[in-house]
Amino acid sequence: MSLIDLSKQVALGVDIGGTNTKFGIVNHRGEVLDKGNLKTDAYDKVEDFIDALYDHVFPLMEKHGAEKHFDGIGVGAPNANYYKGTIELAPNLPWKGVIPFAELMTAKFNLPCTVTNDANAAALGEMLFGAARGMKDFIMITLGTGVGSGIIANGNLIYGHDGFAGELGHTIVKPGGRKHWSTGSEGSLEAYASATGITITAKKMRAEFPESMLNQYPEDEINSKTVYECAIKEDPIAIEVFRYTGQKLGEALANFVMFSSPEAILLFGGVIKAGDFILKPAKLHMERNLLPIFRNKVKLVFSELDEADAAILGASALVWEK
Amino acid sequence: MSLIDLSKQVALGVDIGGTNTKFGIVNHRGEVLDKGNLKTDAYDKVEDFIDALYDHVFPLMEKHGAEKHFDGIGVGAPNANYYKGTIELAPNLPWKGVIPFAELMTAKFNLPCTVTNDANAAALGEMLFGAARGMKDFIMITLGTGVGSGIIANGNLIYGHDGFAGELGHTIVKPGGRKHWSTGSEGSLEAYASATGITITAKKMRAEFPESMLNQYPEDEINSKTVYECAIKEDPIAIEVFRYTGQKLGEALANFVMFSSPEAILLFGGVIKAGDFILKPAKLHMERNLLPIFRNKVKLVFSELDEADAAILGASALVWEK
Repeated sequence: MSLIDLSKQVALGVDIGGTNTKFGIVNHRGEVLDKGNLKTDAYDKVEDFIDALYDHVFPLMEKHGAEKHFDGIGVGAPNANYYKGTIELAPNLPWKGVIPFAELMTAKFNLPCTVTNDANAAALGEMLFGAARGMKDFIMITLGTGVGSGIIANGNLIYGHDGFAGELGHTIVKPGGRKHWSTGSEGSLEAYASATGITITAKKMRAEFPESMLNQYPEDEINSKTVYECAIKEDPIAIEVFRYTGQKLGEALANFVMFSSPEAILLFGGVIKAGDFILKPAKLHMERNLLPIFRNKVKLVFSELDEADAAILGASALVWEK
Repeated sequence: MSLIDLSKQVALGVDIGGTNTKFGIVNHRGEVLDKGNLKTDAYDKVEDFIDALYDHVFPLMEKHGAEKHFDGIGVGAPNANYYKGTIELAPNLPWKGVIPFAELMTAKFNLPCTVTNDANAAALGEMLFGAARGMKDFIMITLGTGVGSGIIANGNLIYGHDGFAGELGHTIVKPGGRKHWSTGSEGSLEAYASATGITITAKKMRAEFPESMLNQYPEDEINSKTVYECAIKEDPIAIEVFRYTGQKLGEALANFVMFSSPEAILLFGGVIKAGDFILKPAKLHMERNLLPIFRNKVKLVFSELDEADAAILGASALVWEK
């Protein structure tokens, strides 16, 4: 190991979302040396997508290749399985069934490739480069269109026996509650605390309260952004939408804390732009539902990573974590 | 290591409960060579308890000492902290505050001592000697007077950042539900699935249904044992008591599975004597609340350890696990 110059080692980090894929060349310090993106949903066949990704990445690899050594590729993607290197039955991706993604990437790039789900990648990114540096036990919750999670215990990601651990967005916070638009489950955290869930809550509440500012928007403009606009103008109904969301989130977080007793819970994703409107009720209801031995111990904080780079950093972290 | 004869190594396993303490001398094969017990609640001071324990154990240590080597002491106790060696604020033990239990034991016995909570000890016992042999990811749920848990992920117990992880009995399964008699929380798993919870459910249901066989018993004889007696005689209300208990347990188990994706969930403790009356509805409601990727994968099984010895085996396993 002593002969390897760490400053020359780089990884390719790839973050695959339903619409866009981002990638970047990252060094050990978490600096993104170069980056780019392409449309995920423009490629019906996964092989075509990987060919296009290669065409995008190859010029950057050539540019840095003279002075850097590429250690591998890390990929964060929905429903990606770390053990098997597969992407399995991902509802939001164009490629159906079980895709041997890591194998296909290695065949094309001639580099080792590791995959994991996007929230796990984000958790690794936070541990190596973000707000969780130095922590051995924390939980990352991503609050975006959906709710994802990555759980670190004793310094390692929890993958579970099959590689699918950490689907906290699908845990039930209100038995018999709101039906999930895609899974059909009733009362899951995602049904309330995702951007999609917030939109549903807002539409319900504005219908009940005609005086709410939320009624000034057409139906298709009601989302967490417009609710935020009304909340900062002190519309009580908009504030209540976030308070309710925060309560459901906080109740769920209390259960997570009693599972793995983390030092911190990190929140990440578009929904956290609501700031204290969600964070304060979340903290209140988390503490209220905890056993006394857990109270006032867990830090509830926002991610410190730049959102545009976080996913790439997290994915690249996979290369060195392995 | 090659000079150590494993067949000569033994550990002292101690299981401290609110009323009784059991101890045993255990070898690497999980055989209990000798055992005994004493009353926990007869000693108001922890030092007196440890002196009494020593007086009980010393003759057995002398008896085996000539041919065996004592490697250490493992202790399972409520609210015991693995990192600090303490027993902290345990509501059911006579000793109040934060007790430096491992330190006191080492001073008396002149042997290294490791402590952990009783359910964690049981999980280790199952992994080394019981139904979880060979498993790296499983959850142990103890269903007794209370509900305890031990979580194994990637072959290790999850202790959390402070040593208190795995309080699954106190996770909320029904927000705003039944108030817990001791913690005051509303709708915790323990409030429904413990023996105490079953008794509460049975008393409520027999009051609603005068025709139930459960009404043939005086109030203070209503418990999970008498409910079982009525259930095997096909009393529909007694069967419903267990079905409801199993439903709440199953809903909680689904959430646990989506956290750590275990290969199996092991159930242990007095309540499992109800057998299929609880197991079948628990399995049904667990599966029903799982995302499809988790369905029909998780084994839901009863402990294989002899109940009288399990706690001692589990505690002794701590010595070698460390």
